[in-house]
Amino acid sequence: MAPPLSDSALDQLFREARSYNGWLDKPVTDDQLHTLWDLMKMGPTSANQLPARIVWCKSAEAKARLAGHAGEKNRAKIVSAPVCAILAMDIDFHEQLPWLFPHTDARSWFVGDEAARRQSAFRNSTLQGAYMILAARAIGLDCGPMSGFNNEAVDADFFASQPKWKSNFICSIGYGDRQSIFPRSPRPEFETFNQIL
Amino acid sequence: MAPPLSDSALDQLFREARSYNGWLDKPVTDDQLHTLWDLMKMGPTSANQLPARIVWCKSAEAKARLAGHAGEKNRAKIVSAPVCAILAMDIDFHEQLPWLFPHTDARSWFVGDEAARRQSAFRNSTLQGAYMILAARAIGLDCGPMSGFNNEAVDADFFASQPKWKSNFICSIGYGDRQSIFPRSPRPEFETFNQIL
Repeated sequence: MAPPLSDSALDQLFREARSYNGWLDKPVTDDQLHTLWDLMKMGPTSANQLPARIVWCKSAEAKARLAGHAGEKNRAKIVSAPVCAILAMDIDFHEQLPWLFPHTDARSWFVGDEAARRQSAFRNSTLQGAYMILAARAIGLDCGPMSGFNNEAVDADFFASQPKWKSNFICSIGYGDRQSIFPRSPRPEFETFNQIL
Repeated sequence: MAPPLSDSALDQLFREARSYNGWLDKPVTDDQLHTLWDLMKMGPTSANQLPARIVWCKSAEAKARLAGHAGEKNRAKIVSAPVCAILAMDIDFHEQLPWLFPHTDARSWFVGDEAARRQSAFRNSTLQGAYMILAARAIGLDCGPMSGFNNEAVDADFFASQPKWKSNFICSIGYGDRQSIFPRSPRPEFETFNQIL
């Protein structure tokens, strides 16, 4: 049994963390992206599916390509960030299960049922996206997640050689500029959306 | 700019945390569930949609009802836990946007497009599910997330009066019994599923 994390850690992960629209001029290193992956990959996914596939757009060229497929308001949020991650999912994740979940034949649960694979890939890659956001915050980075972009265009541009990889959402990562954030939107009390039975 | 959290915090959140199948005989209080919600609700969702609706099954009766709709292997994981959360999503979350995202008419983006609402509710309630898992770990609790249950049966039983609420996944919460876990499944190196462009 572990004690709760410190108040400052809870602030950094949840209470004071915000989604950023603008970024300080301070780079994110490849080492930091490796550290981020090594944390986020530990989060649970159903049968260890780990369906997320990530392209970290770090060069000006890659960010410009991605921004070209984004909604107008999101373009500057992509190109001005040190890194913008394309979080995608592999609809054929089940082909990796023989080594990711080796103690049973989990691949066979998904063969021939692409609808089930799509649902499972969407759920589990989204879980991984949330782990990415919280792992980034845990190592002192800030995030700006976005879903306002043309998924089909991103897939055609970045995943032409991987037709079963589909973009889920994108997320700028760096050191957020406090001047770029809006006032926090309301958060509901427990009773509004929760029930104890 | 915040420094990275301590190694022990990163262990508690990611590296040493595990999905539990069995539970110590130690209750989870309603206060802890409120604390959990007050952390997880701060995590980002698109346009502050917060589509998750949660039923925390805490009584023996509620857990038995839920277990009746679960796969055979999951039943004991539900009834033996102090709490099992049904994480659901409101397909009509857009009706709450006038107060959750008050500075623009975000409700109008979703009126008449239930397919878009289903996708957005699924993505954003799943993000909230991951925030729930990590917030639970952050306050010293353990989790056992599960998707092996009959969603339609759970919805009919628990959400009969809310036909637009759909279960996403369930998650046992408590103090995990280290003897109930399996060896950790493999986690891929960065290069396997990541690319820096």
